[in-house]
Amino acid sequence: MADRPLGVAVIGYSFMGKAHSNAWRNVGAFYPDAPAVRQQVLVGRDEAAVGEAAARYGWAEAATDWRDVVEREDIDIVDVCTPGHLHAEVALAALAAGKHVLVEKPLANTVAECEQLVAAAASSAGRSMLGFNYRRVPALALARQLIADGRIGEVRQARLAYLQDWLTDAAAPMTWRLRKETAGSGALGDLGSHAVDQLQWLLDERVTAARGELRTFMTEREGDAGREPVTVDDAAWATLHTRSEVVASLEVSRVAAGRKNALSVELYGTAGSIRFDLERLNELVLTEGTGPTAGATQVLVTEDDHPYVEAWWPPGHTLGWDHTFTSQTADLLRAIRTGGEVAPTFEDGLAVQRVLAAIETSNERGGAPVDTGN
Amino acid sequence: MADRPLGVAVIGYSFMGKAHSNAWRNVGAFYPDAPAVRQQVLVGRDEAAVGEAAARYGWAEAATDWRDVVEREDIDIVDVCTPGHLHAEVALAALAAGKHVLVEKPLANTVAECEQLVAAAASSAGRSMLGFNYRRVPALALARQLIADGRIGEVRQARLAYLQDWLTDAAAPMTWRLRKETAGSGALGDLGSHAVDQLQWLLDERVTAARGELRTFMTEREGDAGREPVTVDDAAWATLHTRSEVVASLEVSRVAAGRKNALSVELYGTAGSIRFDLERLNELVLTEGTGPTAGATQVLVTEDDHPYVEAWWPPGHTLGWDHTFTSQTADLLRAIRTGGEVAPTFEDGLAVQRVLAAIETSNERGGAPVDTGN
Amino acid sequence: MADRPLGVAVIGYSFMGKAHSNAWRNVGAFYPDAPAVRQQVLVGRDEAAVGEAAARYGWAEAATDWRDVVEREDIDIVDVCTPGHLHAEVALAALAAGKHVLVEKPLANTVAECEQLVAAAASSAGRSMLGFNYRRVPALALARQLIADGRIGEVRQARLAYLQDWLTDAAAPMTWRLRKETAGSGALGDLGSHAVDQLQWLLDERVTAARGELRTFMTEREGDAGREPVTVDDAAWATLHTRSEVVASLEVSRVAAGRKNALSVELYGTAGSIRFDLERLNELVLTEGTGPTAGATQVLVTEDDHPYVEAWWPPGHTLGWDHTFTSQTADLLRAIRTGGEVAPTFEDGLAVQRVLAAIETSNERGGAPVDTGN
Amino acid sequence: MADRPLGVAVIGYSFMGKAHSNAWRNVGAFYPDAPAVRQQVLVGRDEAAVGEAAARYGWAEAATDWRDVVEREDIDIVDVCTPGHLHAEVALAALAAGKHVLVEKPLANTVAECEQLVAAAASSAGRSMLGFNYRRVPALALARQLIADGRIGEVRQARLAYLQDWLTDAAAPMTWRLRKETAGSGALGDLGSHAVDQLQWLLDERVTAARGELRTFMTEREGDAGREPVTVDDAAWATLHTRSEVVASLEVSRVAAGRKNALSVELYGTAGSIRFDLERLNELVLTEGTGPTAGATQVLVTEDDHPYVEAWWPPGHTLGWDHTFTSQTADLLRAIRTGGEVAPTFEDGLAVQRVLAAIETSNERGGAPVDTGN
Repeated sequence: MADRPLGVAVIGYSFMGKAHSNAWRNVGAFYPDAPAVRQQVLVGRDEAAVGEAAARYGWAEAATDWRDVVEREDIDIVDVCTPGHLHAEVALAALAAGKHVLVEKPLANTVAECEQLVAAAASSAGRSMLGFNYRRVPALALARQLIADGRIGEVRQARLAYLQDWLTDAAAPMTWRLRKETAGSGALGDLGSHAVDQLQWLLDERVTAARGELRTFMTEREGDAGREPVTVDDAAWATLHTRSEVVASLEVSRVAAGRKNALSVELYGTAGSIRFDLERLNELVLTEGTGPTAGATQVLVTEDDHPYVEAWWPPGHTLGWDHTFTSQTADLLRAIRTGGEVAPTFEDGLAVQRVLAAIETSNERGGAPVDTGN
Repeated sequence: MADRPLGVAVIGYSFMGKAHSNAWRNVGAFYPDAPAVRQQVLVGRDEAAVGEAAARYGWAEAATDWRDVVEREDIDIVDVCTPGHLHAEVALAALAAGKHVLVEKPLANTVAECEQLVAAAASSAGRSMLGFNYRRVPALALARQLIADGRIGEVRQARLAYLQDWLTDAAAPMTWRLRKETAGSGALGDLGSHAVDQLQWLLDERVTAARGELRTFMTEREGDAGREPVTVDDAAWATLHTRSEVVASLEVSRVAAGRKNALSVELYGTAGSIRFDLERLNELVLTEGTGPTAGATQVLVTEDDHPYVEAWWPPGHTLGWDHTFTSQTADLLRAIRTGGEVAPTFEDGLAVQRVLAAIETSNERGGAPVDTGN
Repeated sequence: MADRPLGVAVIGYSFMGKAHSNAWRNVGAFYPDAPAVRQQVLVGRDEAAVGEAAARYGWAEAATDWRDVVEREDIDIVDVCTPGHLHAEVALAALAAGKHVLVEKPLANTVAECEQLVAAAASSAGRSMLGFNYRRVPALALARQLIADGRIGEVRQARLAYLQDWLTDAAAPMTWRLRKETAGSGALGDLGSHAVDQLQWLLDERVTAARGELRTFMTEREGDAGREPVTVDDAAWATLHTRSEVVASLEVSRVAAGRKNALSVELYGTAGSIRFDLERLNELVLTEGTGPTAGATQVLVTEDDHPYVEAWWPPGHTLGWDHTFTSQTADLLRAIRTGGEVAPTFEDGLAVQRVLAAIETSNERGGAPVDTGN
Repeated sequence: MADRPLGVAVIGYSFMGKAHSNAWRNVGAFYPDAPAVRQQVLVGRDEAAVGEAAARYGWAEAATDWRDVVEREDIDIVDVCTPGHLHAEVALAALAAGKHVLVEKPLANTVAECEQLVAAAASSAGRSMLGFNYRRVPALALARQLIADGRIGEVRQARLAYLQDWLTDAAAPMTWRLRKETAGSGALGDLGSHAVDQLQWLLDERVTAARGELRTFMTEREGDAGREPVTVDDAAWATLHTRSEVVASLEVSRVAAGRKNALSVELYGTAGSIRFDLERLNELVLTEGTGPTAGATQVLVTEDDHPYVEAWWPPGHTLGWDHTFTSQTADLLRAIRTGGEVAPTFEDGLAVQRVLAAIETSNERGGAPVDTGN
């Protein structure tokens, strides 16, 4: 791949396909040190729609058969943005074809598929990366540095929540996201996965045990063919224990009226604390020290000495949600060049899935603690 | 008691004795419709200290023997501000003597004592009131009205926390609050009791089942006689179910670095939500409605049409923590005059204690759900 | 006055009389080191009303003739809470009678009266104190300490506002506050005086020049006898220069819809900045330092090492608006005992009044800068 | 231009060139209804540097002579991102060549140049647009709609500030931005121009008179050749009157320690108020109504029914600073297709420049009010 730009294929062209396309289109402008890429092909099932999307998002071609695409000579990187239940199949094929692979979160809907993917990645020559994009929020990346530097001491307890409200209305219609066979899980999988990944990443250790409880407030919703049962959770609660015995609470909901995209992370240590709210993505709140001016410092994470910021704009010029994908892509490309490590790894994705599975098992067992296997 | 002011005795003169004395001293100035009171006697064990406190806080006399005091003819109201393990004994004696009784929270340290007190109150002619003072925070009283009025619809889930940080430092010394025999419980009893009472009061229904987990991060602390085991919890987590199947999460901690007195209440309903943080006691956040200007309305709860506010100052002139005790006292006095109901009742205190006990039992049983008996 | 408590008379029993009475009633409970006081007499013109108020607020007597009262032997302290245009007359009489005098702000409605009062105070043996109560907001007192300690470097610019909204509604009725003959001034005098005092006090220097502009948005309002002209300002704007050439902007308004009591103080120095908002009276925001964790630190000013806090409650137990009056009273009482300095002095009041007058003069001169005479 | 994409040239490749390039690269992906564009040529003086930038930012070519470029047949749109003192020359040439022109703010450094540009635009067939990008902040666009809809009634007073802190440090070095000959103005022109444009746009009327004051706190700074005088303002203050006699205060500063990019807009009307802070770009605060739940509603402006949002991401997925440029570009392209009006117009730029000039004149005249000529 020496002299030519890396050829990229994105599989999937809806919400995540749009976000990833945006990253591929812009990564070179902001991260000139990353290897050059060529937006080669966008893949989807509906020929007309994917063709239009490809043109719009800057792709040279559109295609409908991902199996062909992942084996093409001119494709170096396969970026999997399909619904979760298809992740494993596509990613395994791409790995088998020797490609670098980026998989949008979740790695897969089941622990078993995740394990398959981890094994395949381990024996592949390409880089395999998982797309928990919030790791590239500058404020969260700064949080991780501060924790690693001991700024809040040894973390004792964490408080995580991811609250949305799009299912608050009892009249909100049935969708594939509310069926277990397609979505795998509800709020827990969709929202909890981000929170659990943050926890494990910020603390740099795994969750080893979980207790949990799930709840579906609206057990039926109106679908195209009348009332249909909702087979995933609307909300979930858990307490998680990490290897070093940090205790974390987790709460996720799609019926938290008034909360739009409120991923909230709080970490309390022996010497301070850190707080973050995704709805104020450019801010981190740090508490440390004692004495009359100790307090909660709201840091606007837009300075050149903050992670990822130098690539973008001057101080005070805030970033949005989509910038995280571009930075994620840059990190993948650098790892491809150097052969270095990527993060999140597929192992990270498996570790998250094990925690979610343990919460579901605990729920089935009336709240008993369950080993995650991590 | 027709023509003379009601004679009051407060038992206890430290933190709570100071706060309650402040209420008795000021209630007439702000609530002229309440029956007049006479600050008769302050009771404590240390004669010199209680004498000094009595003079300072406006009491006519000091005394060291509460048994005498609760039977005095000139005492109409006994206000119990001792440590929790003495509440039952003092209050039972006062009830037996036919007095009106105000007991600072918790009602008692054990369910059994609470049950005794409920029974005694039921057969007493006097008013029996429990001092969960946060019910008189105007913002929370407003929240309750809004919920009762259906402004946020039917509540589905609640998120409660009470976070403090005074035990964060590993060098913080041993105190009686960290010994089970004196304190009964740790963060759960001290902080969780407020949160559970708020939940039951705001929703006007009981918690019927609980799952929980407790944790002592520092299992020993330095006492006067060297290292000593800490026998209560530093932090606790629970999920609570109410009779109508609202699910509430609860998190309490004394090691949440940077949080001073952060009682946080969030309620999510089918039509909106309510949020409150005790560190911003004068504010309530209400979300309701849809459309382009829907959002989180921060109400400064200092208007004449807000609960309790008219007694105090003009709009925008904020209240503090202690004002809640004065308003609580006014409500008690009005109930004494009318013979009407008081709130919180001793039953409310028992209901809270049952929830706390169920959380402890659940913790012992590995997180299994436990019926509260409510 | 050696052995008996100091006898106090408050002249005026409406809003400020209520607030000052509260302070006299409570000062001993929270500041036991202050000399003891006796709430002797409350003075007002309406015999029935003042009698009722006296009983309610804890005064031994009520009276209708302040001239008698200020000369009584048993009165040591005269506290002037009348409307502003009566301040001078009452305070001069009290000073002439050798009493200690506390005057609620403003010192007087005119510079000339202020000068008279300053002269009288200078030749009086008693302590003379002016009641800018916000100097006893712990957060603002902390701000002053931090500035004096150089924590934000040399202050260059300040940004002051005091915004209220009670005249927003065009239908809000005529009151004495909107007539120049009784009120002296509108938003500028009522609100601006607090802001100007804060500026001079926080910086510990005088404003020497001012430019300004006044505006009456509603030039008539409905009075008891039909439409009546409004003869004071609804809003005012100014830039102020201090002796050391700090530039401060000032904006005051009674028609700032949605702002209830928003005294906002911002000070920007060579090494940091300080921000305060009276609607969040317990908080101070401090910015200092550089580097990746520099930011705006929100200090909850409720710790024992914060000014005035030790007298009150434990950390995180917030104070309200009225506590400032009690602390102010304690400072006066201590100064009476020691014969030490009080603050604010009458000179401070004169200095404020000169600034307000200069702003009015500048307004009349089309915005030209006007020397304050300070 | 019928069948082929519109050819675009951007003149300038530093900060603004990067931001505008980003917009041209992405506009098609988010606004598919806008005419297609071809990123043809990026122009700069340094051949190597502009060549590298062109490659990085997605341009087909780089060039060093803007005069050639603006006359090229294949260029339809000239986007002027040079320093302000070159705007007029480049834009005039582009207009003369019949091109559509986008000029980054300010329109020009002087009123005279602005007038020339307005005249030239009036006689040009192409669309002429000025780049005050903050008009495309969804929250501000929503604010304008709400005001136009009468949601806050008739606006009486506005409070504008734009505070930054990059010159706080006395050791911050001399730059071209601090020399009058290159920068034209200091904080006033750079920051005040945005604020003034917002005011005129939100209210849909011109500022007709201004009073003002400027200040340079650091009159010398260290340059490459030693100490050099600073010939522009560090901070400025003004009061502005609009045609309908709204009064607005304006404060701008580059030495406001701790404020990074704090454009703050507050508008107070007879029926409510609006507040905005650029550091929280996705939020708008609206106050309206009365009664116990009236308050300040924080709207997260990320819903599909909010201006510009539908083009981007789902609710709660926040936008950043750069998205405003892409939306601005889309509006220009749509106007090119329809021949409809653009906004801001060059007249808008002239109107802003007149206000800034009036403030400077007022400053020279000791604060007297100056007609803007608008």
